[in-house]
Amino acid sequence: MYQQGIVIDGLQYCNWDREYFQTLKASGITAVHVTIAYHENARETLTRFAEWNLRFEQNDDLIMPVYSMADVELAKALGKVGIFMGAQNCSPIDDEIGLIEVMRRQGLLIMQLTYNNQSLLATGCYEQHDTGITRFGKQVIEEMNRVGMIIDMSHSAERSTLEAIDLSARPICISHANPTFAHDALRNKSNTVIKSLTERGGLIGFSLYPFHLPNGSECSLEDFCQMVEKTADIAGIDHIGIGSDLCLNQPQQVLEWMRNGRWSKTMDYGEGSAANSGWPDALPWFSGSKGMENIYNGLVRHGFSEGEAGKIMGGNWFDFLQQGLEPNL
Amino acid sequence: MYQQGIVIDGLQYCNWDREYFQTLKASGITAVHVTIAYHENARETLTRFAEWNLRFEQNDDLIMPVYSMADVELAKALGKVGIFMGAQNCSPIDDEIGLIEVMRRQGLLIMQLTYNNQSLLATGCYEQHDTGITRFGKQVIEEMNRVGMIIDMSHSAERSTLEAIDLSARPICISHANPTFAHDALRNKSNTVIKSLTERGGLIGFSLYPFHLPNGSECSLEDFCQMVEKTADIAGIDHIGIGSDLCLNQPQQVLEWMRNGRWSKTMDYGEGSAANSGWPDALPWFSGSKGMENIYNGLVRHGFSEGEAGKIMGGNWFDFLQQGLEPNL
Repeated sequence: MYQQGIVIDGLQYCNWDREYFQTLKASGITAVHVTIAYHENARETLTRFAEWNLRFEQNDDLIMPVYSMADVELAKALGKVGIFMGAQNCSPIDDEIGLIEVMRRQGLLIMQLTYNNQSLLATGCYEQHDTGITRFGKQVIEEMNRVGMIIDMSHSAERSTLEAIDLSARPICISHANPTFAHDALRNKSNTVIKSLTERGGLIGFSLYPFHLPNGSECSLEDFCQMVEKTADIAGIDHIGIGSDLCLNQPQQVLEWMRNGRWSKTMDYGEGSAANSGWPDALPWFSGSKGMENIYNGLVRHGFSEGEAGKIMGGNWFDFLQQGLEPNL
Repeated sequence: MYQQGIVIDGLQYCNWDREYFQTLKASGITAVHVTIAYHENARETLTRFAEWNLRFEQNDDLIMPVYSMADVELAKALGKVGIFMGAQNCSPIDDEIGLIEVMRRQGLLIMQLTYNNQSLLATGCYEQHDTGITRFGKQVIEEMNRVGMIIDMSHSAERSTLEAIDLSARPICISHANPTFAHDALRNKSNTVIKSLTERGGLIGFSLYPFHLPNGSECSLEDFCQMVEKTADIAGIDHIGIGSDLCLNQPQQVLEWMRNGRWSKTMDYGEGSAANSGWPDALPWFSGSKGMENIYNGLVRHGFSEGEAGKIMGGNWFDFLQQGLEPNL
């Protein structure tokens, strides 16, 4: 059953090379949301697109770009892994409303309004004060709605997230985060946020990043499935998916770019600490090519039907993206 | 007959506003190649795209973007003016080969390798020494061939132009220039260039810019048609079109940006001079909404068949663009 359905990972940021594309293909994943920018401005983001174009050209037997959900269906039919691009921050649009349509046309399908810090649009989850959506942020939400670019609030603070859900005329997502009831962390989301998000048709993707999980790298597959079940009770079975936040084979400098960008002269450790500054250990049941299939099997063992497990593994992401990416021009 | 065919102006750089779009629509023009960059780098070019997106949004009863020739056919069917975008310089790609595919995806269908001056790719027509296509230039030609971005050598020097014709695996264009036999100017093209270009399937668009014409602003429609006839004898009827270089309603500062960009502290007068530094007077028979129809009627009066005149007015551009824009991915 796992092999038949559409499997979507709602966020990865691995060290992209041919060997990993082979692992992805072997994993049975139909499509992956890949992060192309954390702090890159508009000009730098163009280089990130160019790098992906070269990967598509050099690995076209394994992967293909996704500009619409028809491409995901094509990827499934061809046995390739579809790649759809997103940004974890609003840095790719600089301070310019018109760059939303430009970036959308280039293939930026998803954008976070803020990454941990205050941005021009909203407040990040590590700020002390959350002032909600800014004046520019309101314009950006409207424009993202118009061009069909999906709003992602994974790294945003609570008030900003709730306001974005309200202000957006279209459902939004939290592509990769877990409920705080499972693990209390600034990056995780309250039941209030999860309810508000999903009542409006939004989607939350469960993270496999150890810092977001109960017991960190010791989290068992059964612990994970319990969290999914409890979230489904709040959000409904149609509004949950996987957004693994998988960051494989990346050097320490990438972690430092994610956490520090150009904004801090002193080291910021994000979810880590000075004593624990590196990448967390990967979960043994979510690494290599069997990770998504292990989750599917775990969900079925835990009591989800095959149909429900299929929705969680990709069906829900597919439906959400199909609605959200259609331009309202 | 004029009304039935596809009419394409292979280059304009007017002051784009709603009033002018109404003039364009009334002119019966199906599609226009508009210049979006002279010296703008990659980042600045994004803003030019954003400005056009806003014009498309605000004037969608009059104009529509052209990303492929199917859009030109759609524009014809809808009675709108199709707009396809190009750059008169290679500045939009900075020094980065990967930006060709990025800009092509954004809608940059045509790019000149150089604008008057030496560029990173080739030599411009006002340089004293022409060293031909550079190392980077050869890579760019190959990449433009691959992604289906059309090479334009309107403002390039002779040797560079001949080398580009040879190096390119696909036909290239001179979107807006006239033969030197009609008017001897550095910007116009020798019979050698015209023959080499068109023998390889390339296209030359006749310019209506007075500095490129015999007798300047006094050039008569009959003079123009004589030039067309004589060029057709060299190039064949299938390889000529119109590229008016029409620059209406632009302030002096735009002319200065075109000529000086950021490269000169002293004023460069381009085709003009210190004593004649402004825009030339427009041709009385090529202004307002009747310009293209006047040319069509002039060509037929001069002895071209309606079919031949139709090719020159747009049929040839359509065929050339359709071939040239298809990606070889």
